[in-house]
Amino acid sequence: MSSETSAKDPLVIFTPSGKRGHVSAGTTVLQAARDLGVDVDSVCGGHGICSKCMVRPSFGDHSKHGIHADAEALSPVNAVERAFDEKRGIKPGHRMSCQARVLADVVIDVPAESQVHKQVVRKAATTRVIEMDPATRALYVEVVPADMHTPTGDWERVQEELKTSWQVENIAISLAMLTKLQTALINGKNAITLALNSAHDGASKVVGVWPGFHEPALYGLAVDLGSTTVAAHLTDLTTGEVKASGGVMNPQIRFGEDLMSRVSYAMMNPDGAAEMTKAVREALNQLAAELADEAGIAPEDIFEIVVVMNPVMHHLLLGLDPVPLGQAPFALATNAALDLPASDIGLSLAAEAQAYILPLIAGHVGADAAAVALSEAPQKQDPLTLIVDVGTNAEILLGNKARVLACSSPTGPAFEGAQISSGQRAANGAIERIEIDPVTKEPRFRIIGVKQWSDEPGFDRKIGRTGVTGICGSGIIEAVAEMRMAGVLDANGLIGGPEATGTTRCRATGRTYEYVIYDGSAQGGPVITVTQGDIRAIQLAKSALYAGARLLMDEFGVDTVDRVVLAGAFGAHISPKHAMVLGMIPDCPLEHVTSAGNAAGTGAQIALLNRASRREIEALVHEITKVETAIEPRFQEHFVNANALPHATDPFTGLRELVPLPEVNFNAGETGGGGRRRRR
Amino acid sequence: MSSETSAKDPLVIFTPSGKRGHVSAGTTVLQAARDLGVDVDSVCGGHGICSKCMVRPSFGDHSKHGIHADAEALSPVNAVERAFDEKRGIKPGHRMSCQARVLADVVIDVPAESQVHKQVVRKAATTRVIEMDPATRALYVEVVPADMHTPTGDWERVQEELKTSWQVENIAISLAMLTKLQTALINGKNAITLALNSAHDGASKVVGVWPGFHEPALYGLAVDLGSTTVAAHLTDLTTGEVKASGGVMNPQIRFGEDLMSRVSYAMMNPDGAAEMTKAVREALNQLAAELADEAGIAPEDIFEIVVVMNPVMHHLLLGLDPVPLGQAPFALATNAALDLPASDIGLSLAAEAQAYILPLIAGHVGADAAAVALSEAPQKQDPLTLIVDVGTNAEILLGNKARVLACSSPTGPAFEGAQISSGQRAANGAIERIEIDPVTKEPRFRIIGVKQWSDEPGFDRKIGRTGVTGICGSGIIEAVAEMRMAGVLDANGLIGGPEATGTTRCRATGRTYEYVIYDGSAQGGPVITVTQGDIRAIQLAKSALYAGARLLMDEFGVDTVDRVVLAGAFGAHISPKHAMVLGMIPDCPLEHVTSAGNAAGTGAQIALLNRASRREIEALVHEITKVETAIEPRFQEHFVNANALPHATDPFTGLRELVPLPEVNFNAGETGGGGRRRRR
Repeated sequence: MSSETSAKDPLVIFTPSGKRGHVSAGTTVLQAARDLGVDVDSVCGGHGICSKCMVRPSFGDHSKHGIHADAEALSPVNAVERAFDEKRGIKPGHRMSCQARVLADVVIDVPAESQVHKQVVRKAATTRVIEMDPATRALYVEVVPADMHTPTGDWERVQEELKTSWQVENIAISLAMLTKLQTALINGKNAITLALNSAHDGASKVVGVWPGFHEPALYGLAVDLGSTTVAAHLTDLTTGEVKASGGVMNPQIRFGEDLMSRVSYAMMNPDGAAEMTKAVREALNQLAAELADEAGIAPEDIFEIVVVMNPVMHHLLLGLDPVPLGQAPFALATNAALDLPASDIGLSLAAEAQAYILPLIAGHVGADAAAVALSEAPQKQDPLTLIVDVGTNAEILLGNKARVLACSSPTGPAFEGAQISSGQRAANGAIERIEIDPVTKEPRFRIIGVKQWSDEPGFDRKIGRTGVTGICGSGIIEAVAEMRMAGVLDANGLIGGPEATGTTRCRATGRTYEYVIYDGSAQGGPVITVTQGDIRAIQLAKSALYAGARLLMDEFGVDTVDRVVLAGAFGAHISPKHAMVLGMIPDCPLEHVTSAGNAAGTGAQIALLNRASRREIEALVHEITKVETAIEPRFQEHFVNANALPHATDPFTGLRELVPLPEVNFNAGETGGGGRRRRR
Repeated sequence: MSSETSAKDPLVIFTPSGKRGHVSAGTTVLQAARDLGVDVDSVCGGHGICSKCMVRPSFGDHSKHGIHADAEALSPVNAVERAFDEKRGIKPGHRMSCQARVLADVVIDVPAESQVHKQVVRKAATTRVIEMDPATRALYVEVVPADMHTPTGDWERVQEELKTSWQVENIAISLAMLTKLQTALINGKNAITLALNSAHDGASKVVGVWPGFHEPALYGLAVDLGSTTVAAHLTDLTTGEVKASGGVMNPQIRFGEDLMSRVSYAMMNPDGAAEMTKAVREALNQLAAELADEAGIAPEDIFEIVVVMNPVMHHLLLGLDPVPLGQAPFALATNAALDLPASDIGLSLAAEAQAYILPLIAGHVGADAAAVALSEAPQKQDPLTLIVDVGTNAEILLGNKARVLACSSPTGPAFEGAQISSGQRAANGAIERIEIDPVTKEPRFRIIGVKQWSDEPGFDRKIGRTGVTGICGSGIIEAVAEMRMAGVLDANGLIGGPEATGTTRCRATGRTYEYVIYDGSAQGGPVITVTQGDIRAIQLAKSALYAGARLLMDEFGVDTVDRVVLAGAFGAHISPKHAMVLGMIPDCPLEHVTSAGNAAGTGAQIALLNRASRREIEALVHEITKVETAIEPRFQEHFVNANALPHATDPFTGLRELVPLPEVNFNAGETGGGGRRRRR
């Protein structure tokens, strides 16, 4: 330690950090690293068991650092290292930092794999680096044997050792874990491995116990619990690697498609809220089990779950009454982040698994919006950034370094393919991309799982067994936008008839028209069309989205934004151009519109893997200005104006320079009829 | 506040505390009391609802204090007080301290019933004063209504108010309580009453929620969980009043009479420990339900339980493995005090009831010994005090201000009336006092429930339906001691025959003799005798007790003690003289031997009613020197020497001056035979 060492003591320089300092001769390299604040991993606490602390000493002249390191600068390879090398192998040139002792000036390189706070790069639309500092970790301790003359309990001896070896204090243990600890100490001959959850600042909890040295499977689940879709990533908490990802439909849909209909269900049925709570908890358990199975682990290996969700889902998952959220003042039972046993919310994971629930921003702006803020960090941006998280309930944030605003808007499930006649979730066979020729009005499309476009050679062969099954969320956005650009759909959202549009793909169905994208009936497959009803559903959804964004822009005092980020469970797949043609987002140079993927899910993942981010978002939510769309009179006005494609009053000048937006109108006499015709 | 006030401000003097200070004119008397550190109760937090804060202003000349108080020194009686007076009445001369404001110099008397830290005098053998400062208390708060523009949750608004009005922070709430809080806030129109448990320093937990102002029934259970007997007091946590007391047999007896046989049972049977855990938890639930019924409350009104017990019972109650306690080094799973949800140990009390388990001293010296230390406080005594807590497992403490030693000794259940042929628990009909005439060898006795002695007029009529049923623990001690003093029992513990003793009450039974105390056979009742087997059981028990005490005396380096305190579930009933004749305790002037009643139970009660005492005992256990009787070679030697009545080698000079100890010997030829005769 610096207080006990002098310039005469050996100088140790760690790379790549560049941290340096004098240590007493004979200090282990691991201890030197700790004293100098250098990040070197160790699971066994310096007992020469785990091999996590390998370092590469660098001998010779180091003119850059002004020292010369002899090969004798470290103590010779000892028996522990030789034994380990024989059994499991040590890479050439490497030493166990807990065994090698500093005898003279030396330079020590810490390879990336030996650093605790490894940086994990997420494989996603936006490349993001998350510094690994999860709440759950494994620690190995060897305790002094029980001695009847100093009769401290097993747990007290373990705590003493955790304090000495790992500097961890203030640890809680359940009776169940204490029982396991008793047995593990006997079977492990006073050596045990503990899993600790240190989610709260300074307070930890024992969540797993094993005899001897053990490298437990420690997994975490990051969940974006949406009104329609539940998406989750299963991650190895030791490496940060995502081992499985997946989603299920939210089974609460059977109680109501949108949030307010679920609140109504709770209001009208005495056990309604409890039923919905049970359903969503079961879905989470099922999803956890499926992902665990896919990753080849047991659900009991999941020690942590982080959930982000809107306020209604929040209350329903936690078993709180959602009814107060149905009307002003939208009183939340709690808006703070929660750290609670996963079993308290009915989850069957590790017995002592912990759940972390991100804080809510306001009565209608949830933990999912907080997660988007955590992921996209508008508060750190110079350009004024609009973030739109598309879902059944959209989370919208607008801000920059000066100020961040947030609201949520009830878009309904149309963008998730629900309420759409040929809608389906994003799976093999679903149309995800579409183009309509502005002259011939003929479509070409691509389906999930097949690389070729529908007019390219080999498409028919490739679609094989699956066939073309429907349209997913991003597909319907493109379809409607392409219909508008091709002139088969007017600005009011009316589909033209065959005479007016010049194509038989526009055909009558009842009193309105539909546009046929694909007719698989000859092969026994579906006929996939966009109906007038589909257009209306999309118009309602996009108007709500745009009105929410406009409200934030009013509040900010701007008419334009510098950047737009499209996010959502399928955010990565939305085409910015098509979204803008629909008028989902304000006019903005297309190159400034980016896709962030499932930003809420990413936020959950960040909170899972990095403890500091939890404190960050808990602080940030208090800085965000909340705008309540439900009681803001201008929302209705914005909503009505946003009904047109792209917009009734906002000019969308930039967009019009890029794409054709034919001035057709299918409502008037000779141009042919549309949805509003009286009779036919 | 002093920092904002000056000598020109009104002077307030509180009696009886004598605390005084200047406050700004217009300050309420309650606020003045808080500012000056005067103990004035308030449940409603100054809202004029609870009437707990009544004070008696004292007007006129106060030469003692050097002030004159006008009748106008306080603000006039206001509307809140008038309304309360009409509805529930205010005593003449009293004011609500939260309503009355200080306008000029005044003297205010705080009656005892308005003090929070009331002192409660226990009705017990030793008069003890416990300052009321229980962990559980009720607080009333009025919160600001939900406001969507500052969208904090219900719980956050309640926390804010608790911080402002009650200076309570760091409060945890379960999801179940949060749900109740939601509803209570609505029903109580933003006013609620909370029950908080603040057992840990600085950390609290919500344990109850009611709408509006409510004075909840808050009860606590103090339990002395012995190997043979479970004793408990049910106490009103608001007043400190004991509402019901009672006991049940420990159902674990069916698995083994003493602790080591229970450990063996756990060792030999895979589910043995779990069976015993289940049995004792059920017994506690049953006892709680019975006492609640007796007190006219529901078990759900019990918000706290404090349990003291020896280490084996400790592990068995908590569901920990007791097997390591069966052999050296007697490794405890934990020795620290525990604060955990009562439901974690299977108790059906209030849903959020908390359990506090006193710390253990060592592998064989338990929380019951700690409770005795808390109750009897040897560390605060000048005279060297020996405390003997008599039970199936005896807790023995020896100490003074300089040092405290502790051990436990496996006496077996003889002193609790088990293993005694006519033994029974202390209930109506049991012989509790006995005298034997040294000349006629005739006994007279008293039974529980009847005032008269057996030779007094009216006894036969009074015993009525119950009859004479057996001998309780204190009765058997007196019987054996009286037999020794009357010369029907020799120093080796042999009962003499009719010829040798000159009484037909000594009669043969098999190869030994027994002494007939009562023959009820003519009335169809029992014949109550003391058999040679009973004597042997008492000898084993008392030898273990004495040997333990001697071991502590050796360790302390003394041959005598200044004081002896006899404690135990029936400690209050043991006659010091008879205990000394048996040689249960060392020779000591009889006036220095006192009975403390159930000291362990009292310790539990202290810990229940006063939080500071928990910290006190948690610190004290680390200062106590533990002596392990099981591995101390001298224990065996002391045990053998203590077999004689009163002792083979210790002179008991003081005792011999007070009582006759005839030099009879029933082992030799012509004086008649005893238990050790070869043949008859």
